[in-house]
Amino acid sequence: MTEAGTALVVSAHSADFVWRAGGAIALHAERGLAVTVICLSYGERGESAKLWRLPGMTLDRVKTDRRKEAERAAQALGAADIQFWDLGDYPLTLTQESLFRLVDVYRAIRPAFVLTHSHQDIYNHDHPATTEFAQHARIVAQAHGHNPGQKVLGAPPVFLFEPHQPEQCDWKPDMLLDITPVWDKKRAAIECMAGQEHLWEYYERVARQRGAQAARNSDKKITYGEGYEAVFPHVVESLA
Amino acid sequence: MTEAGTALVVSAHSADFVWRAGGAIALHAERGLAVTVICLSYGERGESAKLWRLPGMTLDRVKTDRRKEAERAAQALGAADIQFWDLGDYPLTLTQESLFRLVDVYRAIRPAFVLTHSHQDIYNHDHPATTEFAQHARIVAQAHGHNPGQKVLGAPPVFLFEPHQPEQCDWKPDMLLDITPVWDKKRAAIECMAGQEHLWEYYERVARQRGAQAARNSDKKITYGEGYEAVFPHVVESLA
Amino acid sequence: MTEAGTALVVSAHSADFVWRAGGAIALHAERGLAVTVICLSYGERGESAKLWRLPGMTLDRVKTDRRKEAERAAQALGAADIQFWDLGDYPLTLTQESLFRLVDVYRAIRPAFVLTHSHQDIYNHDHPATTEFAQHARIVAQAHGHNPGQKVLGAPPVFLFEPHQPEQCDWKPDMLLDITPVWDKKRAAIECMAGQEHLWEYYERVARQRGAQAARNSDKKITYGEGYEAVFPHVVESLA
Amino acid sequence: MTEAGTALVVSAHSADFVWRAGGAIALHAERGLAVTVICLSYGERGESAKLWRLPGMTLDRVKTDRRKEAERAAQALGAADIQFWDLGDYPLTLTQESLFRLVDVYRAIRPAFVLTHSHQDIYNHDHPATTEFAQHARIVAQAHGHNPGQKVLGAPPVFLFEPHQPEQCDWKPDMLLDITPVWDKKRAAIECMAGQEHLWEYYERVARQRGAQAARNSDKKITYGEGYEAVFPHVVESLA
Amino acid sequence: MTEAGTALVVSAHSADFVWRAGGAIALHAERGLAVTVICLSYGERGESAKLWRLPGMTLDRVKTDRRKEAERAAQALGAADIQFWDLGDYPLTLTQESLFRLVDVYRAIRPAFVLTHSHQDIYNHDHPATTEFAQHARIVAQAHGHNPGQKVLGAPPVFLFEPHQPEQCDWKPDMLLDITPVWDKKRAAIECMAGQEHLWEYYERVARQRGAQAARNSDKKITYGEGYEAVFPHVVESLA
Amino acid sequence: MTEAGTALVVSAHSADFVWRAGGAIALHAERGLAVTVICLSYGERGESAKLWRLPGMTLDRVKTDRRKEAERAAQALGAADIQFWDLGDYPLTLTQESLFRLVDVYRAIRPAFVLTHSHQDIYNHDHPATTEFAQHARIVAQAHGHNPGQKVLGAPPVFLFEPHQPEQCDWKPDMLLDITPVWDKKRAAIECMAGQEHLWEYYERVARQRGAQAARNSDKKITYGEGYEAVFPHVVESLA
Repeated sequence: MTEAGTALVVSAHSADFVWRAGGAIALHAERGLAVTVICLSYGERGESAKLWRLPGMTLDRVKTDRRKEAERAAQALGAADIQFWDLGDYPLTLTQESLFRLVDVYRAIRPAFVLTHSHQDIYNHDHPATTEFAQHARIVAQAHGHNPGQKVLGAPPVFLFEPHQPEQCDWKPDMLLDITPVWDKKRAAIECMAGQEHLWEYYERVARQRGAQAARNSDKKITYGEGYEAVFPHVVESLA
Repeated sequence: MTEAGTALVVSAHSADFVWRAGGAIALHAERGLAVTVICLSYGERGESAKLWRLPGMTLDRVKTDRRKEAERAAQALGAADIQFWDLGDYPLTLTQESLFRLVDVYRAIRPAFVLTHSHQDIYNHDHPATTEFAQHARIVAQAHGHNPGQKVLGAPPVFLFEPHQPEQCDWKPDMLLDITPVWDKKRAAIECMAGQEHLWEYYERVARQRGAQAARNSDKKITYGEGYEAVFPHVVESLA
Repeated sequence: MTEAGTALVVSAHSADFVWRAGGAIALHAERGLAVTVICLSYGERGESAKLWRLPGMTLDRVKTDRRKEAERAAQALGAADIQFWDLGDYPLTLTQESLFRLVDVYRAIRPAFVLTHSHQDIYNHDHPATTEFAQHARIVAQAHGHNPGQKVLGAPPVFLFEPHQPEQCDWKPDMLLDITPVWDKKRAAIECMAGQEHLWEYYERVARQRGAQAARNSDKKITYGEGYEAVFPHVVESLA
Repeated sequence: MTEAGTALVVSAHSADFVWRAGGAIALHAERGLAVTVICLSYGERGESAKLWRLPGMTLDRVKTDRRKEAERAAQALGAADIQFWDLGDYPLTLTQESLFRLVDVYRAIRPAFVLTHSHQDIYNHDHPATTEFAQHARIVAQAHGHNPGQKVLGAPPVFLFEPHQPEQCDWKPDMLLDITPVWDKKRAAIECMAGQEHLWEYYERVARQRGAQAARNSDKKITYGEGYEAVFPHVVESLA
Repeated sequence: MTEAGTALVVSAHSADFVWRAGGAIALHAERGLAVTVICLSYGERGESAKLWRLPGMTLDRVKTDRRKEAERAAQALGAADIQFWDLGDYPLTLTQESLFRLVDVYRAIRPAFVLTHSHQDIYNHDHPATTEFAQHARIVAQAHGHNPGQKVLGAPPVFLFEPHQPEQCDWKPDMLLDITPVWDKKRAAIECMAGQEHLWEYYERVARQRGAQAARNSDKKITYGEGYEAVFPHVVESLA
Repeated sequence: MTEAGTALVVSAHSADFVWRAGGAIALHAERGLAVTVICLSYGERGESAKLWRLPGMTLDRVKTDRRKEAERAAQALGAADIQFWDLGDYPLTLTQESLFRLVDVYRAIRPAFVLTHSHQDIYNHDHPATTEFAQHARIVAQAHGHNPGQKVLGAPPVFLFEPHQPEQCDWKPDMLLDITPVWDKKRAAIECMAGQEHLWEYYERVARQRGAQAARNSDKKITYGEGYEAVFPHVVESLA
């Protein structure tokens, strides 16, 4: 844990953190926050179409390739740690043991904020399951009776990053983060995802649209943005 | 306009700014913001039951009394300016002339933020009309073709303060403002409202509940709070 | 005003009170309540297709025929009073003068409850305008500064009756009223509406479906029902 | 089962029934209803912070202390029966065996109404799980094929009591219950909860706010209230 | 699979497909589509009240009778295939094995569209569980890593059929299907459901109301209809 | 009116129809539909920032320039007719006279479908006012008592095109229209809007995102799309 603090990203599959939160990771890493990324799954079954089209592909090779891509992307973004929990996907299997493991992470790093998926996603079953799981672990981490004697977690805000088709997932951004200063890093991380090249331009356009909206909502000059939806009310000391 | 900037409060009746936004006014005034409060009406018909019960009461006397109370409250809060537009209430009459007058205020003071009523209020017809009016004027103030040559307004955030029965008005606070440091001023302003003494304790309890919620959502020590709902997404440079 | 109390029905067009609230009117009239029905318009332009197909039809004849039908229906239901305000339809024109006239009615009869249209209706512009109008008048009737000295209105509940296509109007019944004992009267009133015979069976089916749902939600034997949506929370002294 | 009937309260943790439904329990108990309270868990891990801060605390001692507090509170409220199912918390573990056990309770007592938690709670994972569980058991209890030959359950209404931060849980009260006559009993029950003394004043303020709102929505004199949200439509024989 | 294509209906209990989707099945079967109906359960515990009232009834006899009824109904509608998975009801037990079995069906028949239950149903626990299950299987069927080498599923639209009390289940029809040409077949199928005769007229009225609404929304002559809610946006080549 | 039919686009300002519905106009024009575009305003005050920055600009010159741009764009799209009603903007003034004028258009052209703005738009006051106006006129056009003897309007569907920031306007596309075949025409029309060049790339990206989403929701090859939200349920004869 650096003096600047830490942040936690809970990503269902090994590429989600790049498309959806790469800008936030790079931005806060530059400012000294130690960002931990947890990939619950490699996305080896559901999000690796290109790899499976290669001859002689096996589940292990898909996982290995996905892991390498994600590690390179995490490095490009300056994440302090990336963990692969290999819990399967389509469906993701989330046990109480994994829940308590995530509780341990919350208590160990004490994140300044948490990023995870939207509450709903009609195109993906694992995404909302991950959000529910990340929220549940946060609540247990706050409980004095879980591993009594350990210091309990405070109340870190949780922000939900953008799903693939936001309106269809009832996700509405109430925060627009200016990621212009770190766009090059996010683009570099995106390009690590060789297996999903068809999404590169899609997510560059997402960043440009959110940037244009951030500019319009603030009267500032912003080119690239990421949208987030807060789960809890913002506690503030000023409105200005 | 002070160097610290300005803020604008658009209040349907002459007491609303006290109950609902008194803490925010005092807090930002202490920090040097020049806060302008506009009372579209004195609330002389709809919110002055106690005065009307006095013998020989007239509309003019009600207005005069309401004005004095509101001026004293504004002073207690440190507001820089309070304006009474005397547009009637129950119903409030909002013309295009008044709309353009509010546009002029927006452009003159260029507020860092705007506070007004909730989008809905099943107990009050003037409150949502005021919100619609304040939003409309903000949009016109941004238009280059309105009084061409004048500097247009940027994009100040608009925050909606708490209605009397929040759940029934579909108002959901996404910001909890710590007003503990200025609670004494808000309580003093509340006590200027002699005509509505039955509400004093009610709004002290509101402040305590929002304070307790702010504490729980932040792990900070907060005793008094005010809730706000943002109309537009927050544009931010950091999530930490 | 009878000892048993009064009720108020605010109906946009002269047939709405029959299809949508005929059961409630008959039921409470039987119990001695004096029910006042106000038809803001005859529905002479928008809801009189059959009459307009007759040769030589004029606006006045349509109004006269619609009035007669509505008076007969009101009689069949046992309503104490039916008023025709003739404010036009498609569009209905609602002035401040009419608003204050409705305020006078509220204060004169002091209804135990108020029935009016749904908040939304994508098939009819006058229906939600009527609801807004009835709600607004109720609020003004509660204001001490309106005709000072008059006794102000209390807080009668407002219930919204069923629109033609409930799901499309975001209307959700939270009350199911058993109208089985007065079904014959409602059917008789429906049959007074000679100009809209195509709706007779439609609204009998509505009554049967709401009756079946009332039975299912209560374990009682109910055949005919009407659905209502409450605007305000129910204040109760018991949950049993 | 008394002649006056019964009621059922399904509470996730052993204190929830006090803060959230204590008034309803006392009120109906006074009227002769036999109220059964089921605490699925003691809340020994998640809601016993104060106890865990004592030196040498063990899980068993926490449970014992929580049980004693809850028993005293139930007695203060006049509940006929309180059951502790000890199913764990953070997370609560709800098996099919427990489901059928709750079905048996439904069929045995045949409650006039059921009280349980809100549908959502972003601060607590066990609360909505309890609601889902109580609703599910109610449905199974209505099925003729479950323990064929037993008398099936009718259709008791289910009312959801107030969560800690209502707006954040999308809970909207559509019923306000006047608990003024039994406030002293509720306050006494609250004071049995020695381990959560920081909540005493919070929930007294909740009761006062709901009381003030009940007064405003009814024109009656009411000081203390509890809010409830109905799951099913109310089936009524009168609107007055 | 016929040249005209296929369709898939996923029905929680063995009668749901008749009441809710019988018209759509008959209509598309007439046009040559091979419609597969999967009944996850016989509804032997929860929806067979009439059978259980017979003396000496057993679970096996209920299942047998329900199966026969459903087979006859499927035949009346012209369904190509009806499968009974016998997974229990109240509650329905949905394992990963059943999930993958449904994935196999999706891939085998490659349906032009899928019909299943509403997202919510406060009267039935198994209905939304079935919807979640059918949606989940569709997503897995699209994944290249599930049974690699098999041809993956495309993106068939999913339409949700009407629950028993639509407004209470937050179901809103955005499609009204004209089933007038096949009404006789649907009515014949309904009459196969001897055990639920009390629902025959209820669902005939539903069909008439949806028909009337379809007529009103289209200016066409339509007598019987079925309502559907689309899960995904419609992809179209024309708006006319 | 061509044999292929007609369509109607009701646009608040003279550029809205290009950004938001240009693809639909071009697509249906190619198929022979006569598309009428009505621009209620030139957007001369609110959406002409670039023109107002030119020296010596006057309201008349802005209008003239905006008109020329819009005419060229309409021509590029193949619209049959474009009308400028010059009703002002910021605010748009919508009288009963204009309402009846639009009713006349509805009855004269009898559109196969109608395109207009979203129900809400927190960034623009005129857009939802236009939607309300277009909906209202459609309802009056259906009334037999309006200009009795004229043939009344049927029930054309109304589709709402995409606002600038869809999630903030609670607009959710339930239709994705493939505009790939006419993209070149839409881009050409966009380039007629010299005064708003900063939006060209923004709306090209919108078209690409909607195209990608249409592809994903249909398994078809689609590059450019437009999203629409239907106001009324779709009445269909087939689900396949």
